[in-house]
Amino acid sequence: MPTNQRFLAAAAAACPALDRTIRLPVHEVALERDPSAFQGWSATPVGPADALARRPLAGGHVIVLDFGEHLVGRVSLDLAVISGVHDAPVRLRLIFAELPAEAAEPFDPLTAKPGWLSTAWQQDEVITCDDLPASFALPRRYAFRYLRIEVIEPRGAFTIALAGCRCVQEGVDVADIVTDPTLPGDLAAIDAVARRTLRNCMHTVFEDGPKRDRRLWIGDLRLQALANAVTFRRFDLVKRSLYLLAAFAREDGALSGCCYERPTPRDGSLWLLDYNLLFVATLRDYLADSGDTATARDLYPVARRQVEIGLALLRLDLFLPESGKGWWLFVDWKAGLDHHVAEHGMLVYALRQLGELTAALGDGVAAANDRRTADRLVAAARAAWFDPASGLLRTAAGQVSYANQAWAVLSGIVDADEGARGLRTVALHPDAVRPAGPYLWHHVVHAQLLCGMDREALALLRGYWGGMVRAGATTFLEVYDPADQRLTPYGFVHANSACHAWSCTPAWFLRRWRARLL
Amino acid sequence: MPTNQRFLAAAAAACPALDRTIRLPVHEVALERDPSAFQGWSATPVGPADALARRPLAGGHVIVLDFGEHLVGRVSLDLAVISGVHDAPVRLRLIFAELPAEAAEPFDPLTAKPGWLSTAWQQDEVITCDDLPASFALPRRYAFRYLRIEVIEPRGAFTIALAGCRCVQEGVDVADIVTDPTLPGDLAAIDAVARRTLRNCMHTVFEDGPKRDRRLWIGDLRLQALANAVTFRRFDLVKRSLYLLAAFAREDGALSGCCYERPTPRDGSLWLLDYNLLFVATLRDYLADSGDTATARDLYPVARRQVEIGLALLRLDLFLPESGKGWWLFVDWKAGLDHHVAEHGMLVYALRQLGELTAALGDGVAAANDRRTADRLVAAARAAWFDPASGLLRTAAGQVSYANQAWAVLSGIVDADEGARGLRTVALHPDAVRPAGPYLWHHVVHAQLLCGMDREALALLRGYWGGMVRAGATTFLEVYDPADQRLTPYGFVHANSACHAWSCTPAWFLRRWRARLL
Repeated sequence: MPTNQRFLAAAAAACPALDRTIRLPVHEVALERDPSAFQGWSATPVGPADALARRPLAGGHVIVLDFGEHLVGRVSLDLAVISGVHDAPVRLRLIFAELPAEAAEPFDPLTAKPGWLSTAWQQDEVITCDDLPASFALPRRYAFRYLRIEVIEPRGAFTIALAGCRCVQEGVDVADIVTDPTLPGDLAAIDAVARRTLRNCMHTVFEDGPKRDRRLWIGDLRLQALANAVTFRRFDLVKRSLYLLAAFAREDGALSGCCYERPTPRDGSLWLLDYNLLFVATLRDYLADSGDTATARDLYPVARRQVEIGLALLRLDLFLPESGKGWWLFVDWKAGLDHHVAEHGMLVYALRQLGELTAALGDGVAAANDRRTADRLVAAARAAWFDPASGLLRTAAGQVSYANQAWAVLSGIVDADEGARGLRTVALHPDAVRPAGPYLWHHVVHAQLLCGMDREALALLRGYWGGMVRAGATTFLEVYDPADQRLTPYGFVHANSACHAWSCTPAWFLRRWRARLL
Repeated sequence: MPTNQRFLAAAAAACPALDRTIRLPVHEVALERDPSAFQGWSATPVGPADALARRPLAGGHVIVLDFGEHLVGRVSLDLAVISGVHDAPVRLRLIFAELPAEAAEPFDPLTAKPGWLSTAWQQDEVITCDDLPASFALPRRYAFRYLRIEVIEPRGAFTIALAGCRCVQEGVDVADIVTDPTLPGDLAAIDAVARRTLRNCMHTVFEDGPKRDRRLWIGDLRLQALANAVTFRRFDLVKRSLYLLAAFAREDGALSGCCYERPTPRDGSLWLLDYNLLFVATLRDYLADSGDTATARDLYPVARRQVEIGLALLRLDLFLPESGKGWWLFVDWKAGLDHHVAEHGMLVYALRQLGELTAALGDGVAAANDRRTADRLVAAARAAWFDPASGLLRTAAGQVSYANQAWAVLSGIVDADEGARGLRTVALHPDAVRPAGPYLWHHVVHAQLLCGMDREALALLRGYWGGMVRAGATTFLEVYDPADQRLTPYGFVHANSACHAWSCTPAWFLRRWRARLL
């Protein structure tokens, strides 16, 4: 893969410095089985965290600290001997957990392989301290709210205490999340959690999730950039992220859906057709929000190339790429989802965004051509899939889904009235494939707003994202289904990320669409 | 406890700088069950260690590196991706092992509690590396020859390789152990292993064992100082060790049998009557070997106080301290050993050493008085326990033991002829309590030499310490019984230390007594 060194250098030049601040645990909590609590576990404060400095601990004792909110940072523990003679090393097992259930349901990575992701994503450590008192700095960066500490040793001659514990929070912005007083209480809470979600994913790139994969993905970036533009406005980070992705285009110009930055930047070698198409909208928005024409002009050929690759796959003006043929089709990770209508919608959407970008950069002829191509694809889609009576789009296999409806609206395959009718019909359709998670729910809310369904959009924000807040979330989850709190695409619920970029867009909706929502 | 700050300062002033050198693994080895191998496990070279740089490793793979000899130091691993896309952290389980069986029989410290010592002494680590290539520096100092590496993750998308691995060996002396060409081959091997044992215990104090307890004990120091005087001659380390121990005398002047030095020096609060008595001989030897009269004079009152404490416990001139009454009596850790005769012998021995020390410091009157007291205790012991016909000393309970015989010789309770007769009788006595380990076997060899039993002493060196060499040891063990290779005083054989100070004295015997042995 020929890495574009000039793009890489531009990404390096835009790399932000990280801020740091110290966060202390607030409470000791008791984790208890509670069918009414999220994932079946409640975390109840049982005392102030600093009281632990005087509590003797020995083998078998377990304490759980609550830092009060989801944080990303580096942790150190101060350990002291509190009684007896310290005659041997101390060994502790630590579990950093985003959610109570993750701390309450430990597993042994040495013997168990739950799910199919790497168990090394789990944030557990066994540490051995030879000489106390000691300040032990853990080696990794953790994403967590809870820290479970299990004492393995000492079991005998002496007891220890947790004299101190601190997290050096790190990120592009580590300021406190202050609630917006102009929003109604429940929406202010949703907004704060959304901004914390975004904040905790903003490091030297926009990460998808600070626990997992800690990686720059185009689809997540697209949504993060939306929310960033109306909150933190760190366009340096958007610029860096765009350049990093662009640096690793393969020989035909296709981007990798993700890339890595450590220890040195490298491509992810994952070819996501729909993510690549979203690069176009991200660059268009970046130009509009930042005014950075030079970057937009520099990366414009990359954006156009993603659309060209899509167009080359058309058959009779229908975009019917097949999964597994060199491409990964995402849309949503719902099993059984038929991607065709949504993928076609995304290609049209990308064409329209490309047209706007092209026009903004001054090439009116090319822009008009993009619009014409988009219109042609709209006509083909309507002829193939659209039922004007119901407003529904059915795939060739007859599947009805939120994905079809949302992308038909976003791309303009249907107009606002058709879109509203379709979205209302799909909501009542018994066989409609529902979204699996926040990423597609975002596009549904966006589509609702484009169709004037302001009340429904607000209800969805309050119902879906508000449901996570009511369940105790301080950041929004990668995976959330109110009907199945242990839903996971990974075969292991604790492999899910509890702070995930693609869930952060309520901060965008509540600002960009504020007049319509309030 | 009133710490003597002046002594502490003197100990600090004598603290040596540590030397460091890089040691690389030599072989990859296969660990295999082998009834003929020590503890049932053989380690057979299967290839050069550096070939691992090209071997793909993934979940479930286990490799064992052999560094060729027992080392003490800090280890780092260089990890690299060798194929596939590195999309998740890497997790390895490492076990640093002194012996093949320790590497071949892993246990899970999180669920198992074998034996009664802290499981945190076991040198295992689970490490998680987020970004490869990486050089991962392990946090602790390890004592080991073998490093077992088990790959937990990756299990899927990529493979890794061990691109490098090194141990930064550390100690007061880290030079290669060169075999003495003037000794016969088997004795040269025993001598080299003895010197390596001592070398690997020489850090900022004489440690008992670099794996466990890593602590300064008077009984071990006594034997290390003997060997040191004829090998490394690092009298600064003896001086520091003596001052550290003296700094923590309790209010009645009794020393603690051990002390700790990290993170700051502190006493061990273990009151070993017989170890304290050996402080006297250690100081006497230090003066004789180093010529440092100032230190000897400074610490002389401390030495005398240990003897006075012993004398205060006499009843009708017999020294019959009882274990558990504020004192720990050691002699040897053999279960069921009746300590009385040996403890009495050690008090007499200390009196004689004190007399010599006193004379050397110029107080002839006090020295003569010490000798008279010793002679009085010898008479009492002979009257109470000695059977001239057999040469045996029997405790009040009638017990016959190597401990009784050795200490009767060392203290002069019996003369050389009586001693030789007793030592020969005890060797054939069916009920005699035999030594449990190298510490008492040392005193037996020493007693044999004092009785002119040169051939028997040489045979014991060749049989006992030579047995460890023939079993593959590169350092001498804390616990060794040819008849029971899994003997342990700790309920768990892998809690034993395989490099232990008190086993290092063949280096002393083969030099100080060379003319008699060769």
